[in-house]
Formats: sequence, C-alpha cells, structure tokens
Amino acid sequence: MTDTNERPAVTVIGMGNMGSAVARAYLERGYRTTVWNRTADKAEALADAGAAVASTAAKAVAASPVTVLSLLDNTAVEDVLESVGDAASGRTLVSLTSGSPAQARANEAWATEHGAAYVDGKVMGDPPDVGTSRISLAFSGDRDAFEAVEPVLTELGSLTYHGPDSGFAAVEFNAQVAMGYEFLIGYLHTLSLVEAEGMDLEAFTDRLAGSLNGYAGLLRMMAGAIKSGTYGPDLGSLDVQAALMDDLIGHRESTGVETVRMREVKSLMDRRIAQGHGDQGFSSMFELLRLRP
Amino acid sequence: MTDTNERPAVTVIGMGNMGSAVARAYLERGYRTTVWNRTADKAEALADAGAAVASTAAKAVAASPVTVLSLLDNTAVEDVLESVGDAASGRTLVSLTSGSPAQARANEAWATEHGAAYVDGKVMGDPPDVGTSRISLAFSGDRDAFEAVEPVLTELGSLTYHGPDSGFAAVEFNAQVAMGYEFLIGYLHTLSLVEAEGMDLEAFTDRLAGSLNGYAGLLRMMAGAIKSGTYGPDLGSLDVQAALMDDLIGHRESTGVETVRMREVKSLMDRRIAQGHGDQGFSSMFELLRLRP
Ligand SMILES: NC(=O)c1ccc[n+]([C@@H]2O[C@H](COP(=O)([O-])OP(=O)(O)OC[C@H]3O[C@@H](n4cnc5c(N)ncnc54)[C@H](OP(=O)(O)O)[C@@H]3O)[C@@H](O)[C@H]2O)c1
Ligand SMILES: NC(=O)c1ccc[n+]([C@@H]2O[C@H](COP(=O)([O-])OP(=O)(O)OC[C@H]3O[C@@H](n4cnc5c(N)ncnc54)[C@H](OP(=O)(O)O)[C@@H]3O)[C@@H](O)[C@H]2O)c1
Repeated sequence: MTDTNERPAVTVIGMGNMGSAVARAYLERGYRTTVWNRTADKAEALADAGAAVASTAAKAVAASPVTVLSLLDNTAVEDVLESVGDAASGRTLVSLTSGSPAQARANEAWATEHGAAYVDGKVMGDPPDVGTSRISLAFSGDRDAFEAVEPVLTELGSLTYHGPDSGFAAVEFNAQVAMGYEFLIGYLHTLSLVEAEGMDLEAFTDRLAGSLNGYAGLLRMMAGAIKSGTYGPDLGSLDVQAALMDDLIGHRESTGVETVRMREVKSLMDRRIAQGHGDQGFSSMFELLRLRP
Repeated sequence: MTDTNERPAVTVIGMGNMGSAVARAYLERGYRTTVWNRTADKAEALADAGAAVASTAAKAVAASPVTVLSLLDNTAVEDVLESVGDAASGRTLVSLTSGSPAQARANEAWATEHGAAYVDGKVMGDPPDVGTSRISLAFSGDRDAFEAVEPVLTELGSLTYHGPDSGFAAVEFNAQVAMGYEFLIGYLHTLSLVEAEGMDLEAFTDRLAGSLNGYAGLLRMMAGAIKSGTYGPDLGSLDVQAALMDDLIGHRESTGVETVRMREVKSLMDRRIAQGHGDQGFSSMFELLRLRP
C-alpha cells in the first residue's frame, strides 16, 4: 500500500463558489479529492491544486466512499443524481445544497432506492470561511450514516446534527435564517423611527446590542411556557400590553414608520383578550398562531 | 437641626402599582417622603410605612425639592399639573408616566412657564423590582436639572440619560420596546413553523438564544454602514438574498405560517435590486425606509 492510498478519499460535485471552497479545504487537509462539474473548466481549475477530475458524475461518485454535492439548487441535485444512477450504490451522498425539507426527504428516498446513504446539510456562512469555525453546518439524516461521515464533514466548520429526519437541517436553516430576517427588518424600521426623531443611530444600536443578552432568558422562559401551555403574565398582562401597543403604534404612525407588524401584534392581543386571557402574557398568543392542535 | 431634617426629601404623586413601589423604595432608604393620590385611601396605605400624606397635589409638590409623578397616562399628568399651578415654582418635576415624546415636551413647556424644572422618565421593568438593577429607567431633559436629581433617581434602578431634548426618553422607550415586540412576534411565528415541522421548541430556542450574541456585531456593522451610507454586501448580496427569501417564503407558506413580514422584506429587496443595487447587502434597504433625506 502506498502512502497515497492511506489518505482519506472524498468526492466533491459542483465547483461553484461554495463547492470549490469545499474541495480546496479537503485538498489542503491532504484528502485524495475527486471533483466533477457540469462545465468542465471549473473542475480543471482544481486539478492544479491536486484534485483528480472525473469525466462523469457517476465516475466521481464511484471514486470515494463519500460524495459532497454543492449545487445551485435541488433541481441541479436531481439532474446529477439521475446521471449517477446505480453508481451511488454503497456510497454516502451528502448534499450541501439549499432546498426545502421535502426536497431533502426526496433525495434520501432516491438514495435508499439506489442502495446509498444520504445526509442533508445546510451551510450558514461564506465560502472563504470554509474550513474554519466561522462556518456552521446543520445536518440531518440517518444517524449511522451521519456518524460515519462526521470526521470528513468536521473538516468544513462547526457542525450541528438535528436527528434522523433528513428534512430537519432545512427546517433548522429556514427557521434560523427567517428569524434573523424577522429581527433585522424590525431593526431597520426601528432605526427609521430613531433617525426621524433625531437620535443617534449608532448610540441607539450600541444600547440595543447590549440588551440582546437579556432576551436569551426571556426566550427560554417563553419556550417553556409554550411547551407546558401554562402562561404567566410575561412582559406584563396582555391587558396592559395592549394599551402600550396603542401608544407605540400611535408614535410610529405620527412619524411615518410602517406599522403592519405592530398592528398584527395588537390584533393578536385583542383576540387573546377577547377569549378571556387578558391576564396572561405575550407568549400566550402562541395559541393563536399554533398550526398543530 | 434635627436628624429628620437632614434626610433628603422627595414627593411621590400617584399611588398606583408603580407609584407606591417608588414611594416604598424611598421610605426604605430613609427619605422624608410625601405622597398624594387622587383617591385618598391609596395614599393613606403609605402613611403606615412612614409617608406624610398631603391633602392636595399642590401641597405635596411644595413639600419637597423633587416630585416624582407616576400616573396612568399623560392626561392624568396634565390634570395634576393644572391643580398644582404656581406651587411648582422652584421645584423639579420628574414624570415616570408613559407617553409620547411630544407630551414630554409639552410637560416641560408647562414647567418652564411655572418656574419649575422638568425631567421626563420612562420605566422598563416591574413594580416589585423598583430599587434594584432589574429596573432600568431612561431619562431626558435639561442636563443640569437631571444631574441635580440624579442621586434621588438612582435609588430606583439603573439609569440612562438621553440628552436635553425631554422627548428622548420616550423615543428610547418606544424604540427599544417596539424593537422587542418586532423580535418577539417574529419568534412566535418562527416557533409555529418549528412546531409544525415537529422540531423540539425548547431545543430550537436554546440554539437561537445561543446565537444572539452574534447579532451584536452585525447590528453595529449595519448601523455604521447606514450612518456612512456605504453599503457592502452584508448577509450576502441582495441578488442572492432575494432568491433565498423566495425559498423561505415558500417554506412558510407550505406550512401555513404567516408571511406578511417576509413578503415585505422580499419586496424591499426587489425594489432595491430594481434601483441597480443588487450587489449591496441587507442594510442598504434602509435607504428605502428612511424618513428624512
Ligand atoms: N455562496 C454562498 O455564499 C453560499 C452560502 C451558503 C450556502 N450556499 C449554497 O451552496 C450552494 C452552491 O452555491 P454556490 O455559491 O457555490 O453557487 P454557484 O457558484 O452559482 O455554483 C452553482 C453550481 O451548481 C452547478 N449547477 C447548476 N445547475 C446544474 C445542473 N442542472 N446540473 C449540474 N450542475 C449544475 C453549477 O455548474 P456550472 O458551473 O456548470 O454552471 C455550479 O457548479 C447553493 O445551494 C447555495 O444556496 C452558498
Ligand atoms: N405597572 C407596571 O408594570 C408598569 C411598568 C412600567 C411603566 N409603568 C407606567 O407607570 C405608570 C403608572 O402605572 P401603574 O401600574 O402604577 O398604574 P395604576 O396602578 O393604574 O395607577 C394609576 C394611577 O394614576 C392615577 N390617576 C389616573 N388618572 C388620574 C387623574 N386624571 N388625575 C389624578 N390621578 C390619576 C390613579 O389614581 P386613582 O387611584 O385615583 O385612580 C393611580 O394612582 C403608567 O404610565 C404605566 O404605563 C407601569
């Protein structure tokens, strides 16, 4: 056995911004790295860095026990899997492609039919940070399959595993990212109020940033209340909060700041109060938003 | 001079939940405390704890150099001030009553006309926490007046001072509280998605809570970009983010989660891209929300 054969092997399919960063991370760490890209010249660029370039996606998958797919979207994943076919048998496929929970589950079903294992991954971070802890990757899918490839995936960043339902990495990604957008669009609207009132944006932001830690405990308390269905008056009783909400909406309207979300909050408060729960707190409004009984 | 006369004196007007907690905090700290309430029996309850009960609001204000007003709303403040009239001359009035920036400025104008100083305050926290650092109080108004009464106000909790414009405590309060609601309503909607997908609410919340610190730096970076008007591709370019937003909206719609705010984000992204700024990041959308040119 030569030294070369003792090195771990990995295949990376898709030499876009993210996929080529992934392939380079493996090459830097001494992996025998096979690559494939639909447009051949992008794969050739990796040959100089030591990658073996496969002539088809099927040959690329056959070359290593683990294949990482980093493609534009799940349609691209479906196209590639179709061309790979039975060459996937006995291999583990790890997709790092954005897509829905349902698409991840469909990819897993395809893999099972073709005798392959499937792990779904979602990447939060930028390509230049691949291989550092600044990238975080959420995974889900069969536990044994994940644990078998975890040493290979750990090379890419900091991992979280969300259980055997292959759709859960996408759920986690979509929930965390959407939560970020909910927060940040609220921040921009609040800043427009702050600026309209002539207050310094950066000083306000410093105070807001300093108060974020306080939300951690509040969120955990609210999650506990929601899970148990026992609602105390968190943030005050809804009766009191509804009056405050009128003031906040009035102030925003008087300065021209958009109030659609604040009015939604107020109408949820009013509905909950009308149900006789004006003595409960903010988290109790979850009962109005809950999708499963 | 007797010992009694060496103790600092303060008047508290309004013996509701908050005002009586304020009066008790002063009594516990040894202040000569005078109280008044429209409905007399609520003031009498404080006499047992050592307060002097004034028979009119005017006499209460005359009894101490500093009067704290904790009333239902600013209409109540206006009613009380009218009955106090010239007895306010030479005194400092500190309102801890909720209200708008404009109302605070009107109270200050009334005080100036009557030879009094005015400091506006907004309280974030619950009455039982008065006198601890768990209560935070935002103040604004004439700097000399604030500094003169700061030792008295410090007894109540942790203070911030927002400058000589008496409306700024209300701006700060309204902005911070509305920002909290923007964040928390987004959290409830996100949790409804998480629950609908069968993911554990508390484990998700723990991960979210753990990621809050990361937002502090992001907010400061965005505030800096907005202040300077120089927008890099924060959170990625808007071109890329708009495609991601479609996925997030599609996922929420497929599970029945409300998407009004996500669609607002997407339409702002589309407008900014149409203006030729698809290479800029999230914070650049502030240009569309800005109320002053
Ligand atoms: N870039 C980021 O900052 C970032 C961050 C987090 C997650 N992601 C996710 O990572 C994935 C890849 O992103 P990227 O930035 O690397 O994208 P990219 O640079 O646009 O690369 C897309 C890749 O997909 C390939 N492809 C597209 N359609 C195909 C098809 N039908 N059959 C075969 N190959 C196809 C392209 O091949 P050709 O060269 O032949 O066109 C290319 O290799 C995406 O799902 C993205 O959402 C990216
Ligand atoms: N409680 C909290 O958790 C909390 C937290 C933060 C901020 N705040 C703010 O603190 C202020 C007081 O709240 P609170 O909880 O103490 O309210 P509260 O218990 O309802 O007390 C209201 C007080 O206002 C008086 N009042 C109402 N209308 C009046 C009028 N026209 N003339 C004279 N007095 C009048 C009432 O006197 P009567 O007894 O004669 O009715 C009573 O003393 C409010 O602005 C509130 O927003 C409260």
